Amino acid sequence: MDGKMMAIMKAKPAYGAELVEVDIPKPGPGEVLIKVLATTICGTDLHIYEWNEWAQSRIKPPQIMGHEVAGEVVEVGPGVDDLHVGDYISAETHIVCGKCYQCRTGNYHVCQNTKIFGVDMDGVFAEYAIVPAQNAWKNPKGMPPEYASLQEPLGNAVDTVLAGPIAGKSTLITGAGPLGLLGIAVAKASGAYPVIVSEPSEFRRKLAEKVGADYIINPFEEDVVKEVRDITDGNGVDVFLEFSGAPKALEQGLQAVTPGGRVSLLGLFPRDVTIDFNNLIIFKALEVHGITGRHLWNTWYTVSRLIQSGRLNLEPVLTHRYKGFDRFEEAFELMRAGKTGKVVFFPHRS
Amino acid sequence: MDGKMMAIMKAKPAYGAELVEVDIPKPGPGEVLIKVLATTICGTDLHIYEWNEWAQSRIKPPQIMGHEVAGEVVEVGPGVDDLHVGDYISAETHIVCGKCYQCRTGNYHVCQNTKIFGVDMDGVFAEYAIVPAQNAWKNPKGMPPEYASLQEPLGNAVDTVLAGPIAGKSTLITGAGPLGLLGIAVAKASGAYPVIVSEPSEFRRKLAEKVGADYIINPFEEDVVKEVRDITDGNGVDVFLEFSGAPKALEQGLQAVTPGGRVSLLGLFPRDVTIDFNNLIIFKALEVHGITGRHLWNTWYTVSRLIQSGRLNLEPVLTHRYKGFDRFEEAFELMRAGKTGKVVFFPHRS
Amino acid sequence: MDGKMMAIMKAKPAYGAELVEVDIPKPGPGEVLIKVLATTICGTDLHIYEWNEWAQSRIKPPQIMGHEVAGEVVEVGPGVDDLHVGDYISAETHIVCGKCYQCRTGNYHVCQNTKIFGVDMDGVFAEYAIVPAQNAWKNPKGMPPEYASLQEPLGNAVDTVLAGPIAGKSTLITGAGPLGLLGIAVAKASGAYPVIVSEPSEFRRKLAEKVGADYIINPFEEDVVKEVRDITDGNGVDVFLEFSGAPKALEQGLQAVTPGGRVSLLGLFPRDVTIDFNNLIIFKALEVHGITGRHLWNTWYTVSRLIQSGRLNLEPVLTHRYKGFDRFEEAFELMRAGKTGKVVFFPHRS
Amino acid sequence: MDGKMMAIMKAKPAYGAELVEVDIPKPGPGEVLIKVLATTICGTDLHIYEWNEWAQSRIKPPQIMGHEVAGEVVEVGPGVDDLHVGDYISAETHIVCGKCYQCRTGNYHVCQNTKIFGVDMDGVFAEYAIVPAQNAWKNPKGMPPEYASLQEPLGNAVDTVLAGPIAGKSTLITGAGPLGLLGIAVAKASGAYPVIVSEPSEFRRKLAEKVGADYIINPFEEDVVKEVRDITDGNGVDVFLEFSGAPKALEQGLQAVTPGGRVSLLGLFPRDVTIDFNNLIIFKALEVHGITGRHLWNTWYTVSRLIQSGRLNLEPVLTHRYKGFDRFEEAFELMRAGKTGKVVFFPHRS
Repeated sequence: MDGKMMAIMKAKPAYGAELVEVDIPKPGPGEVLIKVLATTICGTDLHIYEWNEWAQSRIKPPQIMGHEVAGEVVEVGPGVDDLHVGDYISAETHIVCGKCYQCRTGNYHVCQNTKIFGVDMDGVFAEYAIVPAQNAWKNPKGMPPEYASLQEPLGNAVDTVLAGPIAGKSTLITGAGPLGLLGIAVAKASGAYPVIVSEPSEFRRKLAEKVGADYIINPFEEDVVKEVRDITDGNGVDVFLEFSGAPKALEQGLQAVTPGGRVSLLGLFPRDVTIDFNNLIIFKALEVHGITGRHLWNTWYTVSRLIQSGRLNLEPVLTHRYKGFDRFEEAFELMRAGKTGKVVFFPHRS
Repeated sequence: MDGKMMAIMKAKPAYGAELVEVDIPKPGPGEVLIKVLATTICGTDLHIYEWNEWAQSRIKPPQIMGHEVAGEVVEVGPGVDDLHVGDYISAETHIVCGKCYQCRTGNYHVCQNTKIFGVDMDGVFAEYAIVPAQNAWKNPKGMPPEYASLQEPLGNAVDTVLAGPIAGKSTLITGAGPLGLLGIAVAKASGAYPVIVSEPSEFRRKLAEKVGADYIINPFEEDVVKEVRDITDGNGVDVFLEFSGAPKALEQGLQAVTPGGRVSLLGLFPRDVTIDFNNLIIFKALEVHGITGRHLWNTWYTVSRLIQSGRLNLEPVLTHRYKGFDRFEEAFELMRAGKTGKVVFFPHRS
Repeated sequence: MDGKMMAIMKAKPAYGAELVEVDIPKPGPGEVLIKVLATTICGTDLHIYEWNEWAQSRIKPPQIMGHEVAGEVVEVGPGVDDLHVGDYISAETHIVCGKCYQCRTGNYHVCQNTKIFGVDMDGVFAEYAIVPAQNAWKNPKGMPPEYASLQEPLGNAVDTVLAGPIAGKSTLITGAGPLGLLGIAVAKASGAYPVIVSEPSEFRRKLAEKVGADYIINPFEEDVVKEVRDITDGNGVDVFLEFSGAPKALEQGLQAVTPGGRVSLLGLFPRDVTIDFNNLIIFKALEVHGITGRHLWNTWYTVSRLIQSGRLNLEPVLTHRYKGFDRFEEAFELMRAGKTGKVVFFPHRS
Repeated sequence: MDGKMMAIMKAKPAYGAELVEVDIPKPGPGEVLIKVLATTICGTDLHIYEWNEWAQSRIKPPQIMGHEVAGEVVEVGPGVDDLHVGDYISAETHIVCGKCYQCRTGNYHVCQNTKIFGVDMDGVFAEYAIVPAQNAWKNPKGMPPEYASLQEPLGNAVDTVLAGPIAGKSTLITGAGPLGLLGIAVAKASGAYPVIVSEPSEFRRKLAEKVGADYIINPFEEDVVKEVRDITDGNGVDVFLEFSGAPKALEQGLQAVTPGGRVSLLGLFPRDVTIDFNNLIIFKALEVHGITGRHLWNTWYTVSRLIQSGRLNLEPVLTHRYKGFDRFEEAFELMRAGKTGKVVFFPHRS
C-alpha cells in the first residue's frame, strides 16, 4: 500500500513529540500492515513523551510512538498464512523469543529477551502501522475499536486482579489512575465485594465511583487502615491490589490486608522502598505477586470475553476521545496532569 | 419461650407431610431458638416428602422437615456466648465433628461424621426452630430473609462454579433446576462468559434466560456438542458445570469441554454411570471436581459478599413465595413437577 | 551422512515387525539426524507390534517403530540454529501445532493437531534417526543414555504424581507395569509416604518392592480397600494414582482414597467403565485429573533434575538391556508377557 | 501426680535462666500432663534467654521456658476424652481461638488471638509439662522422641519449602542455621534439585553439606548471584527460600531467582528492609510467600509422614544431645555462638 500517513513521532531526544507525515510502511516477512482504527495512550508513552530517565536509556529517536491498538489488516507480508486482509486485530506488545527458559515453561510475560512494540521499534500512533503476525490477536467483529485497543492494558489489570481467587473477596485497590480504574472494572465484573479504593485525586475518586467502587477513601484526609477495618468487620481485606506506585500506599495496603491474604503489585515505585517485612509480610503470611505484562495468550482470552460479557464498565474509564491526532499535545498534557482516565485517538476521522 | 407453633411434619413413613401444631422447642446447651423469617425448599426436602429409597433409609418420622433458613435469635441456650437475642442468622446444615481427619485438615464439608440438620434432627419448616450455635452464620441487617435463606444452596453453587478460575471463562451449565439457576447467577456475577445452558424443560429455559444465561440449548432438540463448539470457535468450553444428574448431560458436557478444561459435578445421578474414561477424561487431560456441601466457612463469606454486591441475580430464581405454610402441599407438588425455581415460605404472615 | 543402518520396521499390516537394513535418512529443514545411543520400548510400540485395533486405524506401514530415545546429533538440517553436531539430546514425542487454542494457552500436551513421533512418521528403533529440532531436549553430558531415553515416559509419570501436592502424602498406586514403576520411583523421590502399591503380578510386585514401595498388595488375594484403610488409620490415602487401566483398580482406588483426596488417571481402560459417580466422586469431593502426554517443557525440566538428583531409583525399572536389535523379538515377547520393566536397546554395540 | 521436678526457669527479667526444682503441675480442664521425653531449643527460647527487646515486651517471669517437645501422657485433666495415659504426643505451640476470621477460614496459623505455648504460659523445659489437649499431636510408637520434638520447627520448614511445587525445582536456600538445615532436609526429601545453600559460617556450611546440599556458597567470599546463575545455565533458581533474616541475603536471593519464580520468607529481619521492588519483585513477576507458624493440622501430617518415610536426613541437624538439664547454660551459649544445629534435652537420664 503506497502513500503517506500522519504519525506522532518521538523525533528528538527531548521533551515532547511531533506530528509528522511519513510514508506508509511496508510489511516485511511475518508482518502485517493495519489501518489503525483506535489507539490508546499508555503511561509508558507518557514517559517517552516526557523523556524521563528510563526513556533516555531505552528509546532511540526518531521513532513512532504508541503500542495499544486496534486495527484492520490491509496488507499481509510474506510468510504470513493465518492473517488476511480485512481481519480485525489488536496486538500484544511484548515480542517474545520463544527460546528462553521462561518461554519454554509458559512464562512468556517474563521472556528474557522481550522486545517491546512501540519502545524498541516503531509503534502505532499513526494512521497505519506494522504488527508482527505472531503478536496479532483477532477481535470479534462487533467489539468497538476503543475497547479492542484497551485490551492490552486490561491484560495487566486482569493479571493483577485474577492472580488468585477474587469472587466474593473483599478488595482494596490503591490508585485509581488509568490502570487502577481498569482494575476496579475487572474486580467488579469478577465478583469482588466490597471493592474499596484509596486515591488522593478528587478527579480520579469520581471516576472510581462511576466505574463502580463500593467505598472510596482519600488517603490524604482519612486513615486508610482504619477505614478498611471498619468496612470489613475489623478483619482487613482479603485482597490488596497496588496500582499507584506510591510507597505509602504499599505500606497502608499491607497493613490493611488480612493475615493470610493476597497482594498484587503492579504500580512501579519511584525509588527503592523500605518496609517492615517481619510484621507486614512474614507474620501476616501474605502471598505477594509481582505483576508485569500479560500471560500469553490466556489473559487475552479472559480480557476479550470479559468485554464481550458486557459486564466490564469501561465507558467511564475512557474519558477523552480524539478524532485525528491534531490535538495530541493537549491529550498528553491532560494525562500528565492526572486529568484523564484512558485517552483514545481515532486516527481516521470518518 | 413458651407457646405453640405451626410446623411441616414428616409424620409417617409414607408419601407427603402434615401441617401440625406443636410446642415451641427449648434450646439446649450450645443451641439457640430462632424465629423463622424465611425458609426455602431443597431437593432433599422433596425426597423426604416423596419418601424415596434414600429417605426411607435415613429419616425417622415424626420429624420437622426443612433446613434452609433465615431467622432471628429469640432465645439462647446455656453455654452460648457469641450469639444474642436479636441476632439475624442463617444456618450451615452440616454439623461436623471437628475431630476426624477431614475436619483436622480443613475439609469440614466431607467430615466423616457429619449430621445433617433437618435430616438427622428436627428442621426449620416451622415458625420457630432450634439451631446449634456452632452452625449459626450472622447476616448483615439489610439482607432480605429470602436471600439469607438461599445462602445454604448458594454455597453449593459457589463451590461448583468457583472450584477453579471462572472470570472470562466460557462455561457450559447442564441443568437449570433450582441449583442450576443459582449456578448461572453465580457464574455471571463472577465474570464467566459465555454462559451456555443446556436444559430440556421450556419452563426452566425461560428462567435461565431471565437469570442471564448467554446461550440456551434444548438438548432434546439440538446437538449440544455442536452448538457449544459453534459458540466457542470450535474449541469447546473451558468449564463444564453439571447440575442435572442426567447421565446423558454428563456425557455431552465431557464431550463439549475443551481439552485441558475443568469440570464440576454437583448433580446426583439416578444410578451408576458408564462413560468412556479414555476419550472423555484421560486423553482430554480434564480436571474433574466432585462437589458436595460447602467449605466451612470460606464459602459462606463468599456467598454473603456476592449477595451484598447486588450483582447476583436471584429475583428470577425465587419463583414462588408463600406467606404461612397453609399451601405447602401445592408448593411441594409444583416443585415435584419442575414448575418452580426456588420456593420460599415466610412462616409469620406479617 | 551417507550409509546404511539397521532398523526395526513395521513392514506389513500384521502382527510383528522386521529387522531391516535401510538408508540412513537425511535431515530436512528444521530437523537433525541423531546417532541413537539408547532407545526404550513403550506400550504404544507393543500395540503397533501386536497390530491391535488402534494400531490398525492409525499406523501406515512400512514405518520405523519407536519414539523414546537418547542420541547424539550427527547432522543438522537447514534452518536449525540452536542445535549442533555433538549435542546430546532426547526427544519430546508430541509434535504440536503452536496455533490451536490449547497451544496458545500453554496446554501443548493436548494440542488439537498433535502428531506423534514414531506413530505418524518414522521413529527411533534404528541406528540413526531424524528428530524435529523443535522437539529436541538437550541432556547434561553425564546422564546415562538409558536414563535420558526414559525421560519421555518419566514425563507421564511425573505429570501423574505431581498433578497436586505429594510430599508427605499417603499414596496408592494401582498397577506396577513399566509406567507404574516409574510412578513409584517419582512418588518416593518426591516425598510421598506411605507409597502403597496394588499389583496382581508377582513379578511386578517384586519390582515394586525393589523400586521402594512401602506396602504392596495383591488385589487378587487381599482386600485392597481394607488394607489401605488399615495402613492409613482408617482414613484412606490422600492421593490415588491409577496406572493399570483395570476398571476394578479404578473402583478400588476411588473407594480407598480419603474424602477430599486427589486422583490421577493415566492407565487406559480396555472399554467404557461403569462407576457409582455419586458415592465414589461427588460425595467424596474428589479432585480427578486425566493425564496424557507431558507438559512442554516444564515436565522435562522436572524429569531431568529428578534424574540428576540421584534420588530417582531407576535401576530396578530397567530390567532388560540389549546391545543391538538382533534379539528384538525376544524383547517384545517378554514385554507382552508382562515379564519386564522397561526394556532398552543400545543400537550400536560398542 | 504428686512430686517435684527440675525445670529451666526464666526466673528474672534479665539475661539467662535458672535450673530449679518445682512442683509437678496438675492438668486443669482440657489439659494433660506429660512426662517430657525430649525437648529441643528454638531460636525463640534463645531470645528469651538473652532477654532481647521482644522478650522484654512479651514474657512475664518467672516462667518455665521451652515449647518443642515430645512426651508421654501421664495424667489427663477433666473433660479430655480423646487422650489417654500412655499416649505418645508432641504439641503444636500455637493455641488458637477458633472464632476469628482466620480460624473460620482455615488459616489457624495466623489466628488473630494466638497464644504461644512456652511464651504466654509455662513451657516444656522440665521433666513434666502441661499440654492443652487441643494442641496435642499423637505420634506413632516407633518415632524417636528427638525427632518427634523436632516436628514443630519442621512444620515451619515444611511450610517454607512446600508453599508451592518443589520436586525437580532448582532451589536456593539462604541461611543454614537450625531452621535452614531442616529446610535443606525437607527440600531434598521432596525432590528439589539442585539445592544450593548460601551460608557465611564454615561450621554451618559443613552441616549443610552433611544434610545433603548439592552446592554450597560462602556469600562473604563468593558472588552468590553469579554462582547460582552458573549452576543453573544462566537462568537462576526456580525457588528461593530465605531462612537467614539477613537483608543482604534477601536481596541476593531475589536477584538469583528466575523471573516467574517462587520465594518463601521465613527468616526474621533485624530491622526494616529496603529493596528495589520494581526490578526484584514486580518486573520479575515473582510469587512471594510470608511464612509463619504451621498449617493446622495439614502440616503436621506432612511432617510426620516425611519423618516416617526415612528420607528426611535429620541426624546431622541434631548436633547436640544432653541427658538432663545440668549443662543447659553450655547448650544455650553454644547455640548463641552459632556452634550448633538443633540441640535436644532428654530430661530423664534413663
